Amino acid sequence: MTELTKQDLLYKGKAKEMYSTEDPEVVWVHYMDQVTAFNGKKKVQMSGKGAANCNISSLIFKDLTANSIPNHFIEQIDDNNQLVKRVNIIPLETVVRNMASGSFERKFATEHLMKFEKPVVEFFYKSDELDDPFINESQAEALGVATPAQMTTMITIALQVNKRLKNIFLNMNIDLVDFKVEFGIDGTGNLILADEISPDSCRLIDKSTGNSLDKDVFRKGLGELVPVYDEILDRLKTVEA
Amino acid sequence: MTELTKQDLLYKGKAKEMYSTEDPEVVWVHYMDQVTAFNGKKKVQMSGKGAANCNISSLIFKDLTANSIPNHFIEQIDDNNQLVKRVNIIPLETVVRNMASGSFERKFATEHLMKFEKPVVEFFYKSDELDDPFINESQAEALGVATPAQMTTMITIALQVNKRLKNIFLNMNIDLVDFKVEFGIDGTGNLILADEISPDSCRLIDKSTGNSLDKDVFRKGLGELVPVYDEILDRLKTVEA
Repeated sequence: MTELTKQDLLYKGKAKEMYSTEDPEVVWVHYMDQVTAFNGKKKVQMSGKGAANCNISSLIFKDLTANSIPNHFIEQIDDNNQLVKRVNIIPLETVVRNMASGSFERKFATEHLMKFEKPVVEFFYKSDELDDPFINESQAEALGVATPAQMTTMITIALQVNKRLKNIFLNMNIDLVDFKVEFGIDGTGNLILADEISPDSCRLIDKSTGNSLDKDVFRKGLGELVPVYDEILDRLKTVEA
Repeated sequence: MTELTKQDLLYKGKAKEMYSTEDPEVVWVHYMDQVTAFNGKKKVQMSGKGAANCNISSLIFKDLTANSIPNHFIEQIDDNNQLVKRVNIIPLETVVRNMASGSFERKFATEHLMKFEKPVVEFFYKSDELDDPFINESQAEALGVATPAQMTTMITIALQVNKRLKNIFLNMNIDLVDFKVEFGIDGTGNLILADEISPDSCRLIDKSTGNSLDKDVFRKGLGELVPVYDEILDRLKTVEA
């Protein structure tokens, strides 16, 4: 167990707070009991939500580490706190889609949950003022957001994560519709997976019932969110045991 | 001169009509005296507009042929009519940008006419119902719109066209801000440049005055359009003489 302690608040996001520690290369992540949607326009406090996400993301990142996927995870401290490597976040959200949903379905008027032969990969430029616009590699290069080599690496890692996640969720009787990840550059210059992987950042469908088991429950007002996240955690503990 | 004649109307677009001829591999293109903008929402009849575009596009395509860029142009018949190879159009508009303007400038809130170090390339999915959405290669492949190999070829040819056009317009004392092209598959399976290249499909800025010399004059209601297009034709005739 770590002897590092929480120091100064570095950054407060929509669902997490990041703190410095005594080690300049290590960041303390606190998962908040808060859920937001629609770029922060809908926001609710929810007891137990932070713990569910912290536990789920910790289990998934441990699995990715065991599968040699480079990432920022160091260790889980308790139900709501993690230690991760300090990175400079590349301001691109990388989305991988196995089926049509959300903005893809709306934009291209496709059938809901139409299966793709190959996963679709999209980048969105992280900018609250611009409302996180969809961006292609040529635009991102022109704006100095990321280099072509970085984006190629991000796509490669995102597809490795997709392969592993699909497998994990299949064992939990769940279809992985799509998910969002973020990447950063660590202190040694390596591009690694960062942020979290949880039902906040994945679209998950129960294979038996067809029910959503992710933040769409909150976005669409389908019911209580925390019991759904706890269900994901329970199934994940079983398959990752 | 051709002995082919105009037969049946195959397709009526926003600025051109396509007719069959006695040769199944050859299409008759009629440039209409009509200008539209905002996906057809603004539409005006304008005497001399078709002739200006037909003459400009013919001169440019002759130049591209002389520079070994594969395209559909066969010959100009008269002021408003051309013969081109029949192709199956790939439903993607390919946009090349040398400076920020239009949708790029709006989306990313960049400085107007900010210069890019390398040209930016974008695809838009040609669909009136979907309002021609911006699309990336991964999405276009998933939707069966084009193959990765086709898109790679389209980008390569579009960048060759950009290099040549920049040069032509520079000799006319004009900056090429951006332009849109379309591609098709001809009867022998080759992917070639199609459609037109004219002030309808390019953003052009006079280097001395900073004035727009393209369809933005119409989009933004800056004055009479045909005299501007005729000015482009006059300068083009001088440099292509």
